Order: sequence, then C-alpha cells, then structure tokens
Amino acid sequence: MSRRETQRMTIGDFLLRRLEEAGISHLFGVPGDYNLELLHQLEDHSALNWVGNCGELNASYAADGYARLKGMGALLVTNAVGALSAINGVAGSYAEHVPVVCICGSIPLRSIDRGLGMHHTMADGTWDRFLGAFAQVTAAQARLTPCNATIEIDRLILTAWREKLPVYMELPSDIAYLDIEVPAESLVLEQPSSDPERLKSCINAIVEHLSAASSPAILVDLDADRFGVAGEVMELAGKLQIPVAVSSTAKAVIDETFPHYVGVYNGDASAPSTQDAIQGSDCLLCIGYRPIEVTTGDFTATLPTDTIHLRGHSADVGNANYQAVAIAEVLRGVIAALPYATGHATPAARQPMDAAPRAHRDNEVELTQAAYWQAIQTYIRPGDVLLVDNGTSYALFGLQLPPGCTFVGSVNWGSIGYSVAALLGTLTAAPERRHLLFVGDGSFQLTAQELSTILRHDHKPVIFLINNGGYTIERGYLGKTESYNDIATWAYAALPKVLRPDTTARSFVVETPAGLYNALAAPNDRLIFIESIMDRFDSPAAVTSSSNRGAELDYGPRGPHHQEGAQLRPA
Amino acid sequence: MSRRETQRMTIGDFLLRRLEEAGISHLFGVPGDYNLELLHQLEDHSALNWVGNCGELNASYAADGYARLKGMGALLVTNAVGALSAINGVAGSYAEHVPVVCICGSIPLRSIDRGLGMHHTMADGTWDRFLGAFAQVTAAQARLTPCNATIEIDRLILTAWREKLPVYMELPSDIAYLDIEVPAESLVLEQPSSDPERLKSCINAIVEHLSAASSPAILVDLDADRFGVAGEVMELAGKLQIPVAVSSTAKAVIDETFPHYVGVYNGDASAPSTQDAIQGSDCLLCIGYRPIEVTTGDFTATLPTDTIHLRGHSADVGNANYQAVAIAEVLRGVIAALPYATGHATPAARQPMDAAPRAHRDNEVELTQAAYWQAIQTYIRPGDVLLVDNGTSYALFGLQLPPGCTFVGSVNWGSIGYSVAALLGTLTAAPERRHLLFVGDGSFQLTAQELSTILRHDHKPVIFLINNGGYTIERGYLGKTESYNDIATWAYAALPKVLRPDTTARSFVVETPAGLYNALAAPNDRLIFIESIMDRFDSPAAVTSSSNRGAELDYGPRGPHHQEGAQLRPA
Repeated sequence: MSRRETQRMTIGDFLLRRLEEAGISHLFGVPGDYNLELLHQLEDHSALNWVGNCGELNASYAADGYARLKGMGALLVTNAVGALSAINGVAGSYAEHVPVVCICGSIPLRSIDRGLGMHHTMADGTWDRFLGAFAQVTAAQARLTPCNATIEIDRLILTAWREKLPVYMELPSDIAYLDIEVPAESLVLEQPSSDPERLKSCINAIVEHLSAASSPAILVDLDADRFGVAGEVMELAGKLQIPVAVSSTAKAVIDETFPHYVGVYNGDASAPSTQDAIQGSDCLLCIGYRPIEVTTGDFTATLPTDTIHLRGHSADVGNANYQAVAIAEVLRGVIAALPYATGHATPAARQPMDAAPRAHRDNEVELTQAAYWQAIQTYIRPGDVLLVDNGTSYALFGLQLPPGCTFVGSVNWGSIGYSVAALLGTLTAAPERRHLLFVGDGSFQLTAQELSTILRHDHKPVIFLINNGGYTIERGYLGKTESYNDIATWAYAALPKVLRPDTTARSFVVETPAGLYNALAAPNDRLIFIESIMDRFDSPAAVTSSSNRGAELDYGPRGPHHQEGAQLRPA
Repeated sequence: MSRRETQRMTIGDFLLRRLEEAGISHLFGVPGDYNLELLHQLEDHSALNWVGNCGELNASYAADGYARLKGMGALLVTNAVGALSAINGVAGSYAEHVPVVCICGSIPLRSIDRGLGMHHTMADGTWDRFLGAFAQVTAAQARLTPCNATIEIDRLILTAWREKLPVYMELPSDIAYLDIEVPAESLVLEQPSSDPERLKSCINAIVEHLSAASSPAILVDLDADRFGVAGEVMELAGKLQIPVAVSSTAKAVIDETFPHYVGVYNGDASAPSTQDAIQGSDCLLCIGYRPIEVTTGDFTATLPTDTIHLRGHSADVGNANYQAVAIAEVLRGVIAALPYATGHATPAARQPMDAAPRAHRDNEVELTQAAYWQAIQTYIRPGDVLLVDNGTSYALFGLQLPPGCTFVGSVNWGSIGYSVAALLGTLTAAPERRHLLFVGDGSFQLTAQELSTILRHDHKPVIFLINNGGYTIERGYLGKTESYNDIATWAYAALPKVLRPDTTARSFVVETPAGLYNALAAPNDRLIFIESIMDRFDSPAAVTSSSNRGAELDYGPRGPHHQEGAQLRPA
C-alpha cells in the first residue's frame, strides 16, 4: 500500500482549504478574540470571503440559507457566547436537514492544559459544556488539536455533507498557526457507495411493489432536495405517469408546472384531488417523509398500507428494511428497471389558482390579505428565490410557483426571524437570481439588523413586510385581542436609510392594492422594501384554520382557546 | 406530624404564584403557541406583568439585568427555537451568578406519550435534546408533569435563589390548565442554615487567622453582591480598619467612597497601591474569588499564602475545608467575634482620578476617548445604575463611582450586546433610578431592536453609544486595520424615531467635547440617546493593553499578532 501524499500547512489554512474544497466560498460569522487568527488566515491567503454579521444567530441563519442553494455552508463564531448565540440556527439546520459547519474559535489549549479560567466561560475551569450542548443538536462535534486536526476536519465536513446535517468544531485559539502534516489530495464529497446486494434487492422490491400497483404515487419531503434527487423523482413519475405530491416542507422541490405534480399534501388540510392521489394510491413511494402536525393536517394524513419509505441511506419496503442503500442509486435503479407506463390514470387536474377577480386598484380600497397574495402571485417570475417566515406569509404555500423557483422556509423548525438573515445567505450564494422575502412584522423584529449587512453588500432583494401589528398567526391559537400578541409599531420602511444612510433602496409603505401594484412596478435594479399595512385580524383562511387546529392539539380539551372570542377564526 | 395545608390550583397559576412569591413581578419573553396558555393565565389573574421582547436572547439578557437589581428574574420562551435562542443569555447568568428561571412552553405531553412529531422539534420524535443542552448551562432542569409540578417548581425556584444560578423548566402546553393539589403556604426564600459545629469552627478559624495577621485585607468578587453580604464586608473592614479591593467583576459592589476601599485589584494591571494592599497582605479574605485572565492581569495576580476563600455555602481556611456554612452567617460571626482594631495600618490613600485638565469645550477639537470619559465622570450621580458592554466602554472601570451606584456588566461571560437588553431589565426592576448605558457600535448592533421595547414602555435611560466604526477592542488583539473588524455604519441616533415614530426621545450626534457637554446638559425627563463619533484607533490605554496581553495568551508565540502593525497598541 502506498503512503498517501502529504504536505505541510498550518491547521487554520488546512481547515480553510477543506471548506473551499467542500464548495464553500463564503464564511459568515462575528469576530471575537478567540477566532481572529483564523480570520486573519482567511484574509491573508484564502479564496474564502468573509461576511461579517450583526450577530451570531443571524450568521447561523445566513449559513443555512447559503447552504440551501450551494449545498454546504459555514459560520465562524467565538467561544461560548458566539456559539450559544448561534445554536438555535444550527439546531434549525438539523431539523431542516441542511449541512452547515459551525466553527468556534475557542479558548486556547494552553488554558485547558493548565486549568486556567478564561472569559467567555463559566469561570469555573470547565470547558466541555458547549461541546455538550452542541452534541444535542448536531450530527458530530470535536475540539481540534494538532493531533486530531486532519482526521476531525475531514470527519466533520464529510459527515455534514453526507448526512445533510450540521456539525460543530472548536478550534482553540493557540493552534491555528501551528504547522502540521496534512493530506495533499482534495476532499472528495461523495456518498458512500451502496452495498451491492442490498441495493439490488431494494431496487427489485420497489420495482415489484410499483409494478403490481394500479395507482402508484410519490410523496416528496425535503430530503429529495437535500440529496439532490428531485430530478430522478420527476423522471420516475414521468416514466410511470404517476402523480407526485410534496409536503409543505418541500414546496417547489418539484417543479409546480410539471404535468404530474398534484400539489402539497397535508392530510385533511390539502385539496381533495391531492388527497385522492396520495390516500387513494395502492402503492406510495415516500422520499424522506417526516410527519409532524403541520405537514399532516394535524395527523389526519393517512398513507396507504403499501407505503415505501426511501431515506438518504436506507429504505423500508414492505416488511424489509434496507441499510447501505444510497437514495440516488436506488432511484436510478428503479427508473432503469421499470418500463414506460401507459396504463396508469392520468393524474388529477391541478387545482387552478383562485379565480377570484383581480383586486381593485382603487385607492379607496384597503389592502386585504386576499388582494395582497393575488398581487404577489402575479409578481413571481421563473427562477426566483422565495423566502418565507412564519405567519400570514405562509399564504405563499398556496400560490403556484413558476419553474426554476427555490423556496426557502423552515416548516419543521419554524424559528421566527429566520428568513431575514437566511436572505443574506441566499443572496450571497446566488447573487444573479432575484430574491423575494415574505415576512411579517413580528418575525422581522427578531433579526431586522441583518438588513444592514444585505445593504452593505449592495444586494437587491425585494422585501415584502406585512405590518399588521403583531403575531397574527398566534391570534389564531389564543389571545385574539390580548396585548401579548401586539408588538411595537416601527417605521419599518424607514429602516434601510438608518442602516445605510447612503442607500439607494426604494422604500414603499402601501395601504391599498393600488399602492401595492405601484410598488411592484419598480425595477429590480436596487433593493426594494415594501411595507404593507393590513388589519391585524385579517389572516388567510388556511393559516387561521391551521392555528385553530394547532391550538386544539397544543392545549387539549381544558385549554382556554375554547372560550368565546379567545381565538381569531376564519372569516 | 400534621399534614401540610393544601389547595387546588391549575399548574400554570401555581407556577405564576410561586414566581410572585419569589419576588418576581415582571416576566420577559416572546409568545409562541406552546406558551400562550401560561401567558393567558398571567393576563387573566396574576399580579405579574408581561414584558414582551423583540427576541428571546434579548429576553434572557433582560431577565438577567432585572435579577441583578431584584434578586431574581424569569423569562418565558417557546419550545426549542425560543429556548435555544435564549440559551446564551441563560448561560451568561450562570457565569455571572444570576438567579434566572427560564420557563419554556414546550410540546404537549400528549405528543410525547404518543411519539408524535411536532413543529419546533427535530421532526424525528425526540424531545429531550433541549433539556440536555440546558443541563450544560443551568443548575437544575425539569420537564413539568401533573405528577411532579409542585415538587419541581419549588425545587427549581429555590435552587436558582439559593445557588444564584439559572434554572430551566419545560411546561408542556397541554397541562397549564390542569387542576392539581398544591401547598397553601408561601414559598420561603432562605438559605439552608449552617451546620452549627462547622459554622463555629469556620468562624473561629477565620478569627484566628485574621487576629494573627499584621496586614489583613479583603478581596471581593461578585458573590458578595449576589449573596447580599457587601454590607457585612464593609462592616468587617471598618471594624478592623483593613483595606478592601474588588475584582472588576465586582465593580461598585463596595461603595467606592468607603474609606477602606482601595480600588479594583487586577494583578499587574492594577494600581500599585491596590497591589500592595492585596499582595502585601499577610492574610487575605476572599469573597467568592473566581480568577480568570481578565480579572488577574492575565494571571499575574499573586495572592498571599494565607488566603481564606469564602463562598456562598463553603469556605477554605488554611488546610481546612468547611461545608454547610452560609456566607452571611460566617461573616456575621466573624464580625461579632473580632474586636474593633486600632493597630492596623491606615489603608493606602485612594488613587485620585486622573487630574488631567478638563477637556476643551472648543468646537474645533475632536472628541477623544480621554475627553469622553472625563466628561462621563462628571455626569455620574449617586444612585445611578450603570450598564457597560465590552469594548472601549470598559474605560468605565477606571472611573470612581459615587455612593449608591449599581454597576451591571458581564466580565466573565462578556457577551457583546448584553447591555442593551439588560438595560430593559434594570429599567423594569427600578424605574425610579437613573440608568446609564455605555455601549459601542459593534455591541449595539447585536441587540439594537430592544431599544424599541425600552421606548414602548416609556423608560428614560441615557444611552451613550460610541460610534467608532467597529470592534476597536478586537483591533488591540489582531487586525488593527483589517476589514473584519469594521462594521456597517448606521445612523444610530435616528433609530429611536424608527422604533417609535412618536417618541419624545432626545437624540444627539456629537463629535466634539463641546457637543458632548451640551448633550449632557439635557434634562432626564425623557430618553436621551447620545451617539459620539470617535476615531477607530482611539482606545483607552487600559483597554488596549488588556487586549494586547490577551492576544499573547490567546495566540501564543506563533500568533500573527507579532507582525508589525497587526495590533492596535497604546498610544
């Protein structure tokens, strides 16, 4: 066996090299004394670009948004205070299956060796607490040392990429400049190949089930995007002429103009034709299905008895469980083995968009949610990147998106404020595309300052902010009129000018459909900020109904939501 | 044994009652569907006041600031996304010994019983991860159930209060309205009484050591404040006529006009007279001493061989370790046992304030850090609450504070942005006092939006913001001129008007000493926001020197800070 080629490099340079080899060209984060030397190495002699954030939570959201488009993201924070500020976003990457490398410039090994107290710790001589916290929400963790650096850096980056999950790495501040022997060859991002027998058996079993079925169908969750198999799914559906639905977590993962696409499946909360296609199937192929209450119409989803579950590296078919089967290989094998079908029913006709008349453009008419989303539907173009935060902006799930759109949301994790900082990440990853952010006032207030970084880097997104005086989605759970669901009223549209006094951003405050259409007519040559003022009790029916059902699940039969007037209900 | 008196209450109402009995009258946090029912109970029939924050990290900082003045604080967040957003602030309460109860409205027990996936989780059927993360950074944790609620609520609140540490409690969303049997009597906040023999022996040992010494002295860390024994410390020092120094973590815990107060002890970085008093003592009594690099002049602190360590519930005297000794009882015993002394040396004369000439009030002169802090010294009044963030604002440690001031900082934890949201907490705890916030632009950007809550509640602090283009304290570590230490330039003084359009706040942008003195002349009848523009390389010598020394500790002999021009150095 020949010895692997090696070269000498500093630990920091090697880490930066590996990040580049993993396809990462931007590093988000906040400087701190424990991470400055890695930043120095980055500025000195790395092709990576530093994108400093206003805070670490925002950095974690930005890295997540970036990874959604680029396949991998990373952030750099400082010991404890930086890492723990970012942990919610990193945990969100776990819930949403996004590979993000969280690098923490940590206290020097010198201090660990000597048991010395340092700032950014508990001042009690302990140093493993933060690794312990991250162990709860990441796929792998390590503190780098000169001894383990080459092994751990590769392990963590590969684990993140292969499992589509975040990892956490501590880089002690006194070792980034130490020279070690490292592999000369590049890191290769690839999935472990399947066990040949298991793969063949799995493909055969799936082919058998699908062939025997009279109404097969496919239900797609977000792993189809993360593992890059949306193309294979559509190829399979096309070849077999069978319907494909998605979970709301996978909105737009399947081109919504694809002829076999039948919409978002969400149990009783989905369209009858979508329910029929999925629930009426006699063999359902699920891709990465992870049911939670908000993707199952509050557990009303009923999958067929013969449901096949494909995951990134395993599958369940009938009573058999298959390990060591890579999802892309399985799908390609199934596609190759099955003949072009003609016998299956034509998929149900797509639900057309609400044929409601276009909103009045009269200046006297107040802007309703209904009119708002009709206008938005007309604005979306092929290839847009759409980011949505929790709230009435969830109405976006009901719109039909043109081809090539990317939908960035956080349905499982649902951390409000995510979208604003994730927007910085998607803009950084794909500056050539048009990015639209849909966010409510309550969510915006958590991460508003990251607009400053978006402006600083001359990005040109369109920001749709709904100013309706608070947490309207929560009013549908409880506290329709309670003050705890109200928030401070900001002059939102004035914020770009404060965060960048020389900004060329166009800000609009609109209160009528006419005003909104006027704002939508602005060219996309600069950042556009559209604050739309709407009634706090005006909420899309689908959002309110979901909140109402959620309250029953959350609070049960003794809950206060049963009191008269306690909840916002659909109009 | 008689059975304890009980009554029936809902779990939520009992929790709220216990918080009130613990002296908490305000609950910070952010609503979420899993915590709305407790909020509903709070609004319906509790004396507690809800203070909604813009985000959970800010809520944790606010609860910490509140607890610093009120003795105990609490926040309410929602499952996972809220809790993890707050964890950095809660961990900071651990590092800074602040009793805070973090209550998380969590997923319903129904879903745990049934193993159902929910939003705000990993969507994988797990539910213990967040308790696990908080176990790393809190003194106690529990998920409440109808079975354990009375026991766990009392355990957690008492643990926080007794140990002066944060605790974490999950309240599943479907049990807050369930009716249980609870104790009728009030919660009594008191420390467990000492073991009588241990206490007596400990007092005797301390008395023996102090009596035998010719130059005893006292060094005070923050536990003197947290355990409420600053009065006892001063009484002892007065009785024995011995010098008292503080760690920077305990700034202003001892009245700085107290005749025996000799300043902040910080190893070689402290004044020679302070060093003499501490290092030259032949018996040093330390109160809660927790050395870290920034409180020991980077480990140059050298305590006498005969150093007694008093902690909240234990002590070390000579070779003996005493457990079950309450610090207040020990100190009171020592005071009682020792006679009024006359023989000890008069304490060293206080270091006078820099006798530099008062800054020119000429409009042509640019504002320097030196002139800035001279002006601030003149502005501070007895009884002020002073909040300081990391950065050049650390110059505040060098000022002499008048009697009755409270100093709120975070020296151990050092999370930038803390002070802005902590200000909301201190204002809420003591609205009758004057509150001054000292913060730099870099720190301010992390938590700026919480200014909105301060404005919303009509508070009237004075906010001193230094706009010097970035992380100047980091420039003293590394990257003097590197862009990673630069930040976006906001129109800071315009922010109050955006966050509350009808605000009456007075905003000033000052660039000269004259401008600053003009702003300082404004009456305190409304919020005052003073943005001072200063040079990015102008830094108080003590701050820059500390950064320079820190870089050597952090990066070691191979670090890049040795390169010419890599660091900002003292002028």
